[in-house]
Amino acid sequence: MLKAEMINPFLNAARNVIETMAHTKVKGGKPHLKENKLAFGEVTGVIGMSSETIAGSMVVSFSAPAILQIVANMLMEEPRSKIDDEVVDAVGEITNMICGGAKADLAKINHKFDLATPTMVVGKGVEISYYSNSPTVVIPFETEAGGFVVEANLHPR
Amino acid sequence: MLKAEMINPFLNAARNVIETMAHTKVKGGKPHLKENKLAFGEVTGVIGMSSETIAGSMVVSFSAPAILQIVANMLMEEPRSKIDDEVVDAVGEITNMICGGAKADLAKINHKFDLATPTMVVGKGVEISYYSNSPTVVIPFETEAGGFVVEANLHPR
Repeated sequence: MLKAEMINPFLNAARNVIETMAHTKVKGGKPHLKENKLAFGEVTGVIGMSSETIAGSMVVSFSAPAILQIVANMLMEEPRSKIDDEVVDAVGEITNMICGGAKADLAKINHKFDLATPTMVVGKGVEISYYSNSPTVVIPFETEAGGFVVEANLHPR
Repeated sequence: MLKAEMINPFLNAARNVIETMAHTKVKGGKPHLKENKLAFGEVTGVIGMSSETIAGSMVVSFSAPAILQIVANMLMEEPRSKIDDEVVDAVGEITNMICGGAKADLAKINHKFDLATPTMVVGKGVEISYYSNSPTVVIPFETEAGGFVVEANLHPR
């Protein structure tokens, strides 16, 4: 389901948002298929997306050290000691911005998606499952403070 | 944001789906506003919904004993000992059906919603946050085996 032309918009949008909006240098890793259901990190944004022919979800999941540093860089302040409401809201905003960026690129290749409102999940050892038989693509990223991933699971409607 | 005419479609759809599809007797409690972010139960379905004027999410969260009995009743088998992949898939299906039922009723009062694909979250002590300033309405339900809730957070677009 997910060809390179469908993956690159997410990869580019994630890099743009974290580097430009959050002033945090990012190294992108190799996209691969997800082999389990564990959320990558302690705080995760989930957003539904649907076009006329495709539906599914995009997820952005951050390790605690990575998101605490990213939020500190965004707000130009010292990193907080824990994931609080403002950090969770920032994850919602970042999820929205990444999916919005990907949406703009996907529209250029004639996939016009509508986006839902993000939901954020906080917890350790959380499992996230998609209601879909399609594979989940994982795009890993590294920052100086820690890692995060963008995942997409898209299936024919 | 959420008036009674907006809440009743979720209440009725949840009762219909669990009683009719899952052959499980349900007692509905009094809807109230959510005061924290903890997921009610160990397994939760999340689905995005949007109309021209409103966007948001609906959540269905089950205690483990409740969903294990509901799935047993759906499949006409003995309850499983733990939440496995089939149980998680069933939560996705139930989430879809409840939101689909609510969507049909909401259309009758001229709110035409599109639904995203559900995502399921499994874990203990998980927090679920909405990217919204609107309050979250909780509709509690009891079954013989345990409780579940339907939550809705809808906000102007």
